[in-house]
Amino acid sequence: MTNYFSSNFTLGILGGGQLGKMLLSETRKFDIKTRVLDPNEDAPCKIACNDFEQGDLMDFETVYNFGKKVDLLTIEIENVNVEALEKLEEEGVNVYPSAKNLYTIQNKAKQKLFYIDHNIPTAPFSRFAYTHEIETALKHETISFPFVWKSTQFGYDGQGVKIVRTYADLETLPNVECIAEEMIPFKNELAVIVARSVSGEMRTYPVVEMEFHPEANQVEYVICPARISKEVAKQAEFVALKVSQAYGHVGLLAVEMFQTQEDEILVNEVAPRPHNSGHYSIEAAYTSQFEQHLRAILGLPLGDTKSKVAGIMVNLVGAEDHTGEVVYEDIEKIMQLAGVTPHIYGKRQTRPFRKMGHVTIVNEDVNEARKIAEKVKRTIRVISK
Amino acid sequence: MTNYFSSNFTLGILGGGQLGKMLLSETRKFDIKTRVLDPNEDAPCKIACNDFEQGDLMDFETVYNFGKKVDLLTIEIENVNVEALEKLEEEGVNVYPSAKNLYTIQNKAKQKLFYIDHNIPTAPFSRFAYTHEIETALKHETISFPFVWKSTQFGYDGQGVKIVRTYADLETLPNVECIAEEMIPFKNELAVIVARSVSGEMRTYPVVEMEFHPEANQVEYVICPARISKEVAKQAEFVALKVSQAYGHVGLLAVEMFQTQEDEILVNEVAPRPHNSGHYSIEAAYTSQFEQHLRAILGLPLGDTKSKVAGIMVNLVGAEDHTGEVVYEDIEKIMQLAGVTPHIYGKRQTRPFRKMGHVTIVNEDVNEARKIAEKVKRTIRVISK
Repeated sequence: MTNYFSSNFTLGILGGGQLGKMLLSETRKFDIKTRVLDPNEDAPCKIACNDFEQGDLMDFETVYNFGKKVDLLTIEIENVNVEALEKLEEEGVNVYPSAKNLYTIQNKAKQKLFYIDHNIPTAPFSRFAYTHEIETALKHETISFPFVWKSTQFGYDGQGVKIVRTYADLETLPNVECIAEEMIPFKNELAVIVARSVSGEMRTYPVVEMEFHPEANQVEYVICPARISKEVAKQAEFVALKVSQAYGHVGLLAVEMFQTQEDEILVNEVAPRPHNSGHYSIEAAYTSQFEQHLRAILGLPLGDTKSKVAGIMVNLVGAEDHTGEVVYEDIEKIMQLAGVTPHIYGKRQTRPFRKMGHVTIVNEDVNEARKIAEKVKRTIRVISK
Repeated sequence: MTNYFSSNFTLGILGGGQLGKMLLSETRKFDIKTRVLDPNEDAPCKIACNDFEQGDLMDFETVYNFGKKVDLLTIEIENVNVEALEKLEEEGVNVYPSAKNLYTIQNKAKQKLFYIDHNIPTAPFSRFAYTHEIETALKHETISFPFVWKSTQFGYDGQGVKIVRTYADLETLPNVECIAEEMIPFKNELAVIVARSVSGEMRTYPVVEMEFHPEANQVEYVICPARISKEVAKQAEFVALKVSQAYGHVGLLAVEMFQTQEDEILVNEVAPRPHNSGHYSIEAAYTSQFEQHLRAILGLPLGDTKSKVAGIMVNLVGAEDHTGEVVYEDIEKIMQLAGVTPHIYGKRQTRPFRKMGHVTIVNEDVNEARKIAEKVKRTIRVISK
């Protein structure tokens, strides 16, 4: 086994954003040398890694050459050149998640077909080469309003998913490869993070629950543990493990699921890396998801996934009517509340709904944490100067 | 109030070692710009701060010029040029801990006199301008064997404290300013970290206990909570608060104390910064000591000092018979144990007893944590290749 500690081993990370920054924080604890590639010259990771390289994550040559300089390659974003990763794998570089899994996950249609091939429950859907083909399907009544339109490719940030109720809705969408998914009324959106190490060791984090704003239909709180029955939690964990085994991934796999009105569990999508639904673990779990991802890809024993206390995460997004230099209004007030930790991502400019940070609330009692989380949500505002 | 978050405010840190590194990790969370001064070109802080400067911490000009470039100055080591800090304070730079407190703390004789002046219990002692003057005192029976010799100045790492039983012991000591302290048989060595913010808000961490190796007379475990009676804990907390109020410090103050055979609490010494006795808090407390130090010096509300779970810290020091390139033997084995997190400091070379890292063990039950800590201690070894 490689001795990663205080050796010349270098871990490469594709993407230098917030997830990478939190991952790098754990590499310091283990004294692991790191090299990061990101297109943004001012990427958050820049000051936390040993070596930083500016470059296009979708460019074959850039990713390939970067990979040749490291001993092990991981990602903090799925949108990278997979062909380069395939070539690196062929040449003996360890890439986790694998090129094969990234190839499947990068395309939402391929990902959905993967679940069907592996007998994993997911919402019914149809695949289209172009959005305008949906009209024909509607006319032939192969599908019907309302449905969920999803572009199959990444890169349509904030506009990759849309609920379509009318032909007019359909006309606003980009004419790209897409899927039309049946709209399933669900009780809860749940997520389970599965860690799987090089050696095959597996551990699941507790089921978390995404609580939605009753009107805005936006995730307001990620709550761990989810306030669901033991049976539903068991079923969610079972499905997540099935997904994990199907992928045979190394590292983390965050599995997002729906709990239907009939308490059926349907897989929505996965992320093969540390995930927003696991941020609570920094403060609440015995092993944070970032440390766990490192343990898994380095082939170290996995850490305990249990929670020390209940944890709730609130995303900090830019206020609707503010664009410009950011101010975190009343951040001091939320820091007065027990068990509240803000994580500021350090973006200088705010825009409506831009993800600017997150806040974790921990407490022995999940209901108490939920009350404090609501206070946090009502107090802090991300505005412009 | 200054808005530290995403602003151009710069925090300066004197010293770029391990404590600084762990402090910097928290500055990332709050997105605070940092600048570090350290004599070592390869200081652990170098890759975790925004700007790094190589320079002598004891040199007036270097420290003064460094201080002029930052908005607030803190330390991770006491051994810095205090005159420069005094001048910076006069010119309006906020320096926490203050030059005045550092001046007192830097000299062990001055520190002891400070306790006497403030009616704070401490072991009886005599002060000497030179070690050889102790002989005269012995001959006049002002003091008697055995006693604890301490050089008043820092910088005699590992040889600043010595138990003196004979004239022969005395001859091995450097002829410097020193104190001879009465040897107090104690039941426990305890510590309390007090956080005090710019606004005067104060919070104490739970009392921790240093468990000594029965033969080697070396601290083996730092245990939180200390396994002492409520009355003793209350008394220790009371004394620590008294010390804190006497200093009127801003930031953390780690107060090391003895619990005597008669359950009296005597102050041993203090550190005006994050401290080894508070490392457990990273994993065990609602607010880690590093985050708390930041909150205090930035004038933010202090965080909860309670523990989520019990925490035990084991120092990782170089094995006695090993010098050279370091290997952490069986580190994977300790990582298999529940709630165990190694912190590797990243020094390339090991030497007998050199501090190379620490391991934290957390568990709901302090006795269970203690058992695992012993396993950790017996398993991992810091050796050379």
